Amino acid sequence: MPVGTQATVKGLSQRDLWDDLRARLILGNTYHLFLRPGHESIRRMGGLHKFMSWPGAILTDSGGFQVFSLSGLRRISEDGVLFQSHLNGDPHKFTPESTVDVQLAFGSDIAMVLDECPPYPVSHEFAREAMERTVRWARRQLVHFRRVAPDLPTRHALFPIVQGSMFPDLRRRCAEELVQLDADGYAVGGLSVGEPRPLSLDMAEATRDILPADRPRYAMGVGMPDELPEYVARGIDMMDCVLPSRNARNGWLFTSEGRVVIKHARYKEDPSPLDPNCSCYTCRNYSRAYLRHLFQAGEILYASLATRHNIQRYLDIMAQIRHSILLGSFPQFLGGVRGKVSDPLD
Amino acid sequence: MPVGTQATVKGLSQRDLWDDLRARLILGNTYHLFLRPGHESIRRMGGLHKFMSWPGAILTDSGGFQVFSLSGLRRISEDGVLFQSHLNGDPHKFTPESTVDVQLAFGSDIAMVLDECPPYPVSHEFAREAMERTVRWARRQLVHFRRVAPDLPTRHALFPIVQGSMFPDLRRRCAEELVQLDADGYAVGGLSVGEPRPLSLDMAEATRDILPADRPRYAMGVGMPDELPEYVARGIDMMDCVLPSRNARNGWLFTSEGRVVIKHARYKEDPSPLDPNCSCYTCRNYSRAYLRHLFQAGEILYASLATRHNIQRYLDIMAQIRHSILLGSFPQFLGGVRGKVSDPLD
Repeated sequence: MPVGTQATVKGLSQRDLWDDLRARLILGNTYHLFLRPGHESIRRMGGLHKFMSWPGAILTDSGGFQVFSLSGLRRISEDGVLFQSHLNGDPHKFTPESTVDVQLAFGSDIAMVLDECPPYPVSHEFAREAMERTVRWARRQLVHFRRVAPDLPTRHALFPIVQGSMFPDLRRRCAEELVQLDADGYAVGGLSVGEPRPLSLDMAEATRDILPADRPRYAMGVGMPDELPEYVARGIDMMDCVLPSRNARNGWLFTSEGRVVIKHARYKEDPSPLDPNCSCYTCRNYSRAYLRHLFQAGEILYASLATRHNIQRYLDIMAQIRHSILLGSFPQFLGGVRGKVSDPLD
Repeated sequence: MPVGTQATVKGLSQRDLWDDLRARLILGNTYHLFLRPGHESIRRMGGLHKFMSWPGAILTDSGGFQVFSLSGLRRISEDGVLFQSHLNGDPHKFTPESTVDVQLAFGSDIAMVLDECPPYPVSHEFAREAMERTVRWARRQLVHFRRVAPDLPTRHALFPIVQGSMFPDLRRRCAEELVQLDADGYAVGGLSVGEPRPLSLDMAEATRDILPADRPRYAMGVGMPDELPEYVARGIDMMDCVLPSRNARNGWLFTSEGRVVIKHARYKEDPSPLDPNCSCYTCRNYSRAYLRHLFQAGEILYASLATRHNIQRYLDIMAQIRHSILLGSFPQFLGGVRGKVSDPLD
């Protein structure tokens, strides 16, 4: 799922995303959009889809992760979280109920619950308290959501989020509690917060058999290309990550033949496409030499072309995974990916 | 003519330019491309068209203007100009002949002569000497060009440039000398160097009856939207300017109803398109409120959408001018533009 933090996937027009990349679901960020331009403003503009002219579906995270990673002084209580805007220091409050209301003002197709996302590492006790609060908040939010959402002319879903830091027992307890809520889908949160990458996979593994297989299961904020099939092997259906777009802008490109660090001198006169096996606009029209030139010259067209490619690469990997599942050959696909000395999905 | 200084019109893909905006001729910059990635590199990559995947025509200026405005320490002699790269301080030399060779290495459809572009203001004597050197250099360059160009498999043109600072007598003398060279087209250079804008128009006027009407006449580096018909009224057929693209990035947008400074609070919840009379991708798909949000958030999609619109606006104005000329109503068109209290081309 491409990440469109501030109502835009950085550098891409909606046509690039919809017509070319054929993305159908993108992520928006409640914390950022709440601060600017504001949820009431977006509501008055007809909702986030209309505001950003996006014909597809939108998932918004609740803002919990950003409150804990971006904002200044914050105070958490049973009632919610007080925080300061990273833009201007203004104080704001998110309650479990208010973040649902904000996301419904956006018109999000899939809203996420407000959760408490602990840093890494934390003690078992700290993680347990955060997890228990996350569960209590999730209950309140689903009650609130089920009271207000049916009156809306549009349909929405609210996903609870499994927390528990890197403790499998807490993860399992959290998932067991959340499953009682009978939500439309579930997320695994609190990953990619600084832990070793195998540990993130273990946390997805921990709740694999608890979260219902007939509902979407979403691992938040992961992963590298070679991790996508690993998460799928652990029951995950959806992922979002800033890596394809952020790494693209920083000159780090993912191809079917391995990574390309575009600033390297070896690409200075390389007339070949970035990835000969890719059908994206960038690979169909431009050479590595031209991309390198744009990168070196600091041209914004570089960011746009590079992002298009990296997102296409991620979508291609997910398409390959779906294809192998339909063919019944996913175990072989996964084995092939793991077995390669030079990893084709790296 | 959209300006693509470093082998890219900032923020636009070649598809945006060719398919959407229907631009057919863009400008590249010899000084910048000579320094990075280098003309020999571009030649080895198959020329500038292939390097940047541009299906249309390319005009390159000679680099004279940038040598005088951007580079460090420079020394001018009859043989050419020594200068330091603004990127890394490396010393380089442009001779009249070498700049032709560099532009032919690019494969420019229209190359420009190396000229001496004086700052503003200068004395009549300084301007006369620069103008006379420009004429001597133009002669040398056309001789050189006519010796080397016929051996190439592709066809090229080389335009001399009228100089003379803001002195009409020098402008006329320069034009009379250059016309003897029987070139494929002529440029009026040395404008937009700090002089009052009416003076720039007077300088185009000064050589209007000398430069042949049956060849393209190109005013370099101009102008604002309301100046485009004024230059045409003075015999000018072609213009280039960074204004539409640079002003777009800075939040200054040109519309058929006047200028829009997109950061203004009045656009915060304005659902209307930037210009209701514009058919560009931006105006067909996005609201002023969304553009303002992207601008305020510093998103690169803003630069791309805004540039698309501003270039469309310039191309629309030129299309209106051509249309009125074909209909025989250009004087009325010009009168209409001049007569408006709130200038529609502003």
